[in-house]
Amino acid sequence: MKRIADSTVRRLSAYLRFLEDFETRGLSTISSEELANRGGTTSAQVRKDLSFFGSFGKRGLGYSVPELAGRLREILGLGKEWRVVIVGAGKIGAALAQYRGFRHRGFNILAAYDNNPDKIGRKLEGIPVRDIEQLERDIQRDKPDIVVLTVPGDEAQDVVDRVVKAGVKAILNFAPAQLHAPVDVAIKTVNMAMELEGLSFALTNRE
Amino acid sequence: MKRIADSTVRRLSAYLRFLEDFETRGLSTISSEELANRGGTTSAQVRKDLSFFGSFGKRGLGYSVPELAGRLREILGLGKEWRVVIVGAGKIGAALAQYRGFRHRGFNILAAYDNNPDKIGRKLEGIPVRDIEQLERDIQRDKPDIVVLTVPGDEAQDVVDRVVKAGVKAILNFAPAQLHAPVDVAIKTVNMAMELEGLSFALTNRE
Repeated sequence: MKRIADSTVRRLSAYLRFLEDFETRGLSTISSEELANRGGTTSAQVRKDLSFFGSFGKRGLGYSVPELAGRLREILGLGKEWRVVIVGAGKIGAALAQYRGFRHRGFNILAAYDNNPDKIGRKLEGIPVRDIEQLERDIQRDKPDIVVLTVPGDEAQDVVDRVVKAGVKAILNFAPAQLHAPVDVAIKTVNMAMELEGLSFALTNRE
Repeated sequence: MKRIADSTVRRLSAYLRFLEDFETRGLSTISSEELANRGGTTSAQVRKDLSFFGSFGKRGLGYSVPELAGRLREILGLGKEWRVVIVGAGKIGAALAQYRGFRHRGFNILAAYDNNPDKIGRKLEGIPVRDIEQLERDIQRDKPDIVVLTVPGDEAQDVVDRVVKAGVKAILNFAPAQLHAPVDVAIKTVNMAMELEGLSFALTNRE
């Protein structure tokens, strides 16, 4: 398959949300114009995004809502359960552990890890907090698909090295750090300050 | 100025980080190739991104690190202090309130708002939690530039309507909701589940 840009994947996630909203409201078809309007993009972009994954919809009839939603769930890998662990049982870890949207999408948080003895053995929003010392051993046993990284910036690369060595292939990073990993490891970084910078840019460069 | 895509702005934020890392290490020039390598993009993309904002660097000599960093801070609107309030004093609100990267970038969190009497009057990571009833009055007085929205999804649009009516022009949204606002209001949504979907996509569509 052709290399798909991150921005395309984000739009596919957004389209799926609009389609699910349509499903909830009992609507059975949607045009690329409607999808585009909801997503703040153009119908040409919608058709191009979907064209990467085969042929959808009928000219003049639009897309079948349940069919396209099902296909997008497949494309996004949401048909299976993904096993997730959180490394770093601080405030962001807790916010993520309680986030209900994850389970709904098949992301099952198995455990959180920390090096703070006051946290180890306790629960973080119902999720067990384990000693980070046993991270590699647990990864061998539990085979998590995704590690969510919420440790301080200066500890992040070390954790990446450890989990990558233990076989993890996907990392969602909240630490303010540039991380390095082999090319076969997918890393996504959520940088809160960068999001705010997008707004300061918008406020500064107003028409 | 030409309309700049969100993805371009994100890359500018990333370039600034690499340049600051270079500054820390005492390096004075950088080539578009080096910037591109650090950002996982191409040197043509770097030159194109920067070309929106005028002429930088000298052919064969690369960019001056402090000059380009300074110019990017200007472009991103980081030369001034931005006044921020958080609406929703829950776990995500707390995680953001304690996030040190904000102040470093000139984002000054003035207050948090909540409707829970147990939270009102207390502090959230040192930031006062106020009654959401006084939100409009405080906005008139304190003139925040940016509202960070961390309320439940079904309360989000109501808060957006209120703060927009009170004059706020930029919103960073963490609520799992599609929000509507006038075109002159900038809204950025951070959707945790969508970030994980980017990873499930990557894991599903591996070469």
